[in-house]
Amino acid sequence: MVQLFDDERIDYLLKENDMQIIQSPTVFSFSLDAVLLAHFSYVPIKRGNILDLCSGNGVIPLLLSRRSHAHITGVEIQERLYDMATRSLQLNKLHDKITMLHGDLTRMQDKLGHSTFDVVTCNPPYFKTPARTEQNKNDYLTIARHEVYCTLEDVVKACKLHVRPGGKVSMVHRPGRLVDILTLFRKYKLEPKRMRLVYPKKGREANMLLIEGIRDGKADLTILPPLYIYEEDSTYTIEAKEIIYGRK
Amino acid sequence: MVQLFDDERIDYLLKENDMQIIQSPTVFSFSLDAVLLAHFSYVPIKRGNILDLCSGNGVIPLLLSRRSHAHITGVEIQERLYDMATRSLQLNKLHDKITMLHGDLTRMQDKLGHSTFDVVTCNPPYFKTPARTEQNKNDYLTIARHEVYCTLEDVVKACKLHVRPGGKVSMVHRPGRLVDILTLFRKYKLEPKRMRLVYPKKGREANMLLIEGIRDGKADLTILPPLYIYEEDSTYTIEAKEIIYGRK
Repeated sequence: MVQLFDDERIDYLLKENDMQIIQSPTVFSFSLDAVLLAHFSYVPIKRGNILDLCSGNGVIPLLLSRRSHAHITGVEIQERLYDMATRSLQLNKLHDKITMLHGDLTRMQDKLGHSTFDVVTCNPPYFKTPARTEQNKNDYLTIARHEVYCTLEDVVKACKLHVRPGGKVSMVHRPGRLVDILTLFRKYKLEPKRMRLVYPKKGREANMLLIEGIRDGKADLTILPPLYIYEEDSTYTIEAKEIIYGRK
Repeated sequence: MVQLFDDERIDYLLKENDMQIIQSPTVFSFSLDAVLLAHFSYVPIKRGNILDLCSGNGVIPLLLSRRSHAHITGVEIQERLYDMATRSLQLNKLHDKITMLHGDLTRMQDKLGHSTFDVVTCNPPYFKTPARTEQNKNDYLTIARHEVYCTLEDVVKACKLHVRPGGKVSMVHRPGRLVDILTLFRKYKLEPKRMRLVYPKKGREANMLLIEGIRDGKADLTILPPLYIYEEDSTYTIEAKEIIYGRK
């Protein structure tokens, strides 16, 4: 049995599976971005260690656990979200496979060590924040979406610190920040190797990007075919459906 | 009357127009890349100054002259290509509108001045060259394709030097160099603002990229819809046809 707060509900992850996740419209609900990142990321299949930063309610660790037997560690700075994630692990009986940690990703060296992970994933806050105000410091959604507690550079630096040489770092973000992302990845020696752009529909501008860097990798970026989410009639494309509902 | 060397021929540019260009399979023939760049680039319509670096046989100045009344200057380091371009200007009676200069883009400050152009375009050599050998120094095609006489950084630096503040710089290149391009554009204060990726067909990786930066611009990149060149049956897509043969 898992306790639920009044504003929480249990949603299903991946239609064809029985995986469940605790969400709350006022606190945090996972987005398509996280689902696409979990699908895009390389994962070691049989063993290894995966780290997910800015884990929120743990959606990426939960999704990755279906694709890999590696141990997965999630880090989340907001205690309430960490708590939701922990209860979702209970719900899915995944304590052995996933460890959730409550903490600030810029200060996890003692707990996580250096260069210890094969893969690091991160769906970071997208928007720059003008100033740290008391208001947004206390707003769950603002903290998840804005760089209140960590900047993009903090995130990339943490990815670099925890991934092993030759290991992979993958991230989802907005096209408007592509130059920042690529320059920071290169600055921290996470050479960008694979990128995919996500378009809401044909003929529209990209609204999401998926990027993977390899620590100490050789410079050479591959740009994968574009991913379209919706058809003209606003139903999901076949590819989006396969990603969202899971392949058999 | 225009003189042609034995290895040269006259080709048509834009099916529906009467523009002609001197080409040579052993020396230089323009590629789709140049045509796509000329179409992608912003041009001032009524007046202004446009600079095209690495001009080759002058294909980009010729194409831009159909879209703009600005004066266009082309710079080419190879004398033979410069000479072909000059004769193509004669052929099309475009001496008043286009000026071709023979010279090294890293040393054009006296002739071109600083910050004097509204737009700079460039289709640079794509490939890194291990060492300057006598062999490739004398090979027209190698010089056009490899960084024998200028590196990507030389090119970006020259773009920065000659474009006015607020002016636009556009370039065509390979996806494998995207990180280099974006970091160099930012280093030289040509903030990347607009990018389009070119895919040979659906389902394939991108094989070309078009990028535009604005000198001293604010950071925010828009990624345009992808451009596909061929249909499944290897005929041109409607959009590629419109670009290559010109709109009415």
